[in-house]
Amino acid sequence: MERIVSSSKAASDQALRNRARMLISCPDRPGIVAAVSKFLFEHGANIVSSDQYTMDPAGGLFFIRIEFDLESLPERLSALEANFGAVAQQFEMNWKLSPASRKKRLAIFVSKEDHCLLELMWQWQAGDLDADIAVIVSNHPDMRPIAESFGVPYHHVPVTAETKAEAERRQIEIVEEAQADTVILARYMQIISPVFIERFRNRMINIHHSFLPAFVGGKPYAQAHNRGVKLIGATAHYVTEELDGGPIIEQDVQRVSHHDKVEDLKRIGRHIERIVLARAVVWHSEDRIIVHENKTVVFN
Amino acid sequence: MERIVSSSKAASDQALRNRARMLISCPDRPGIVAAVSKFLFEHGANIVSSDQYTMDPAGGLFFIRIEFDLESLPERLSALEANFGAVAQQFEMNWKLSPASRKKRLAIFVSKEDHCLLELMWQWQAGDLDADIAVIVSNHPDMRPIAESFGVPYHHVPVTAETKAEAERRQIEIVEEAQADTVILARYMQIISPVFIERFRNRMINIHHSFLPAFVGGKPYAQAHNRGVKLIGATAHYVTEELDGGPIIEQDVQRVSHHDKVEDLKRIGRHIERIVLARAVVWHSEDRIIVHENKTVVFN
Amino acid sequence: MERIVSSSKAASDQALRNRARMLISCPDRPGIVAAVSKFLFEHGANIVSSDQYTMDPAGGLFFIRIEFDLESLPERLSALEANFGAVAQQFEMNWKLSPASRKKRLAIFVSKEDHCLLELMWQWQAGDLDADIAVIVSNHPDMRPIAESFGVPYHHVPVTAETKAEAERRQIEIVEEAQADTVILARYMQIISPVFIERFRNRMINIHHSFLPAFVGGKPYAQAHNRGVKLIGATAHYVTEELDGGPIIEQDVQRVSHHDKVEDLKRIGRHIERIVLARAVVWHSEDRIIVHENKTVVFN
Amino acid sequence: MERIVSSSKAASDQALRNRARMLISCPDRPGIVAAVSKFLFEHGANIVSSDQYTMDPAGGLFFIRIEFDLESLPERLSALEANFGAVAQQFEMNWKLSPASRKKRLAIFVSKEDHCLLELMWQWQAGDLDADIAVIVSNHPDMRPIAESFGVPYHHVPVTAETKAEAERRQIEIVEEAQADTVILARYMQIISPVFIERFRNRMINIHHSFLPAFVGGKPYAQAHNRGVKLIGATAHYVTEELDGGPIIEQDVQRVSHHDKVEDLKRIGRHIERIVLARAVVWHSEDRIIVHENKTVVFN
Repeated sequence: MERIVSSSKAASDQALRNRARMLISCPDRPGIVAAVSKFLFEHGANIVSSDQYTMDPAGGLFFIRIEFDLESLPERLSALEANFGAVAQQFEMNWKLSPASRKKRLAIFVSKEDHCLLELMWQWQAGDLDADIAVIVSNHPDMRPIAESFGVPYHHVPVTAETKAEAERRQIEIVEEAQADTVILARYMQIISPVFIERFRNRMINIHHSFLPAFVGGKPYAQAHNRGVKLIGATAHYVTEELDGGPIIEQDVQRVSHHDKVEDLKRIGRHIERIVLARAVVWHSEDRIIVHENKTVVFN
Repeated sequence: MERIVSSSKAASDQALRNRARMLISCPDRPGIVAAVSKFLFEHGANIVSSDQYTMDPAGGLFFIRIEFDLESLPERLSALEANFGAVAQQFEMNWKLSPASRKKRLAIFVSKEDHCLLELMWQWQAGDLDADIAVIVSNHPDMRPIAESFGVPYHHVPVTAETKAEAERRQIEIVEEAQADTVILARYMQIISPVFIERFRNRMINIHHSFLPAFVGGKPYAQAHNRGVKLIGATAHYVTEELDGGPIIEQDVQRVSHHDKVEDLKRIGRHIERIVLARAVVWHSEDRIIVHENKTVVFN
Repeated sequence: MERIVSSSKAASDQALRNRARMLISCPDRPGIVAAVSKFLFEHGANIVSSDQYTMDPAGGLFFIRIEFDLESLPERLSALEANFGAVAQQFEMNWKLSPASRKKRLAIFVSKEDHCLLELMWQWQAGDLDADIAVIVSNHPDMRPIAESFGVPYHHVPVTAETKAEAERRQIEIVEEAQADTVILARYMQIISPVFIERFRNRMINIHHSFLPAFVGGKPYAQAHNRGVKLIGATAHYVTEELDGGPIIEQDVQRVSHHDKVEDLKRIGRHIERIVLARAVVWHSEDRIIVHENKTVVFN
Repeated sequence: MERIVSSSKAASDQALRNRARMLISCPDRPGIVAAVSKFLFEHGANIVSSDQYTMDPAGGLFFIRIEFDLESLPERLSALEANFGAVAQQFEMNWKLSPASRKKRLAIFVSKEDHCLLELMWQWQAGDLDADIAVIVSNHPDMRPIAESFGVPYHHVPVTAETKAEAERRQIEIVEEAQADTVILARYMQIISPVFIERFRNRMINIHHSFLPAFVGGKPYAQAHNRGVKLIGATAHYVTEELDGGPIIEQDVQRVSHHDKVEDLKRIGRHIERIVLARAVVWHSEDRIIVHENKTVVFN
């Protein structure tokens, strides 16, 4: 079950060599789009797609995602970035330019449930998740066969109350050795320390098995069953210091009924969790998300 | 815009003359279905539909809804009820037998927003809500023209901090004079007292403009906007003494995005609220709901 | 039930005085966004939102919708349009500039079913449909009370096999006298002639009560029931000479089951029809749709 | 990635030893439910769930699914079946009694796309698909590693225009040797002959990658793209001699837009296909489906 990149996929990778994405946020004022598009045009770029959002038109904030093609992008990238500095300064921009060929490198954390991991692996193998899966880390040995079947390194780092701090140091080491830039908590059932969170600010995604902010914390399906809700959900969010309180990236729900016991909610929930997490990881990997004041702007 | 009952609708009313519904709950044990269906068969009834639910098969609870046709039902109803007593006693049943022709009589409470009221009136006029709208009560005069256009009595009962208790006495009087058996809070923005709630236990339905238990209490759309959720919802529930804490009848959601301001959430939410409330009122009117320990069993 | 424009709504109308929308399509090539945004910036406009789509990046077609604010727009509109001619010519653009304050004027055609008409009237009254309802035309007298309750002129134009051509001449007269620019077929159960269609090319919207292209033509719910589908749908589309074959604007579906008879499908379908038609009319009214080769690009 | 049956799963298998399901259809008349429930009660069975549907109450057809527990079911099954003959004859029933422990044995047919196969294997491994996967058959060698990783026999039977008949004989042989009772066409891109279809009447399930009856036949996503639909779908159905014309078991859809090229529709469609096929296979495996006149009654 090695990953087979079909020739058409390879051809398409070739085409993406010259594609890049810009994410910009800045105070709104006239002329931003004109300045950015003039800059790109004068450098020979062709804008392939552009999506913009102005929060509160009068004196608010401006967000834009631009995708463009530029001949010989890899060779011209640093010059492009250097030149854009002047435009960025003029408009007080926060900005990021990412070549499509420089894929995000994911470190996936799991415990004993396999469904979120398997969905990510399946979408990655199908070419739907355009990222590199750098490493899988778990506090249990159970998922190793899956990791091996996809040819991805697997690290078992046991976590106990006593070894927690040491275990996390080891985890961070593993993530850095794998040169991962993004951490995915794919039903990883351990609390992450503020140090680790800070290091992966806006680059650590968790899937919570409820429709947040309902049912924060442990055993959300039991809570949902107890309250008698008619829909259950899942929420993918960036991790912050507040438990289940970070910026929400995506949510979805599924209908349930009085027939469904807690076990049924878990089963139905697994399907929502894997879909919701996969969407969030795909969007993050394609630079579609800007975080602003504990909320996300998602260009999709 | 008087209500026009088409001839086909009248014909169908005729057919429903002999239809009845039973709602039964009791401790589970073998033989319940056999006993009930034997009883109905021996009385000449034909079961048209039947839906059953056993909570925890071993030693749990049994719930059933049966719809049946019986020749000359109106004349034979009291005898049927009397005879069923023995079966009910044997199995320790909570039960209710309702002829389909004895429609629920609704008292609809509104404040200044018209969308939930209009949806109920529209579904009622279209023949989709099989109930009688006995009276509309409001703490504002605004909805009177709507009530009048549908030929339904409208009572304006102003509510202030000082007159609250007196106003509620007046409301209960109006509801009783109208012989209403069910109270619908169709975006009625006032707290109901425990006395009123107790009198309409499991017969008072509220629409809350959030996906409960998220965003209990006031300004749920502002709360939702503040949290940055990606779906907003509405919840219809029976009213209990705990604010927004009663048994949930129905919920639904709609997708929103970073584009949507609080005003947009309210606009999108209005569509969910009216659909969710209408479903709950239809199910209640058709005797499809059993309340058990702050949850609902909905046979639909 | 007169339409009440709240003061906040009036204030917002004031704010929209200076807002305009541009819809542009042209062959794709570098520099389009730069040229248009430079043009707007130099004329003092502030781009409030912009959404772009490139069909086939290499040598394909470019579509964009831009919303902008410009001080004293009404006074400067003709100059703006005249000046834009040069940009448009350079890039071979099809383009349209519409001030937000110049609302679409709708002529709504109905037969005997009221649900689509009522939904449009309700959304219009709630301020969710930003258009003027110029006139309602029907081949039956039934909807007159609804029209009158909203203060909209109603014309009853009977249609028989013999008077069909004459009736349509009368309809076109009525639409033109009302200065309507858009025709909405809100369950109008008559065939429209090619002459009428041509005159309202891409400005005549029909709601078809099936998920097209399934169940073209008459009695789609009976067809759906007969085929045993598990979802039923509705489709809003621009009318072309091919029956139910025009560019699709919006579709949606609802789950059904073996329980549902043709009558139930009709009842469930009414809810989908009204929602789908209302969405399409709102998008058309806000200049969000470009038609290209029997398909729509919808910026929403 | 061997299948690991957890102990709780094993315990639950033990509990299901004594569970059985009955599917009955017959002409409607009073007393059916009474007779069946009396029969089960007298034999000591406890009805766990029961779902009934009457098509056209006056003189129509009656369908019921009953799930019951009976002490020592395996030992008493044949006697039960023999005794039920009298009841069945009296009411002219079509009926089937299936012990929950006698699992359906599935033969899964695939070509080169893995997503439907993987979803079935994943749900099977998670315990959500309560069936035995007896064998995987393909006209290509590509899926062998997947089959092997799950420990399921894989047969590669190449199909060419010349060898078609011979290949099918071989396929039927393989299916029979594996004692499979159900054939799942999980994106198997070959026409099945009437002989094979007849042998697995109402036991051969296909997933068609469109919302039938739209886009029958080849390249449905290209057809959908060409028509400009706003939702795409998938349909699971029993296979009959009419191409894509058999009884529909389940359908679902997903929203698409003008942005989506044929390749995107295929990608989005894969997610719908696998979910829809898995639901249909689960329902078939749990004896929840009765076929009647090219439609399905699904008790779920």
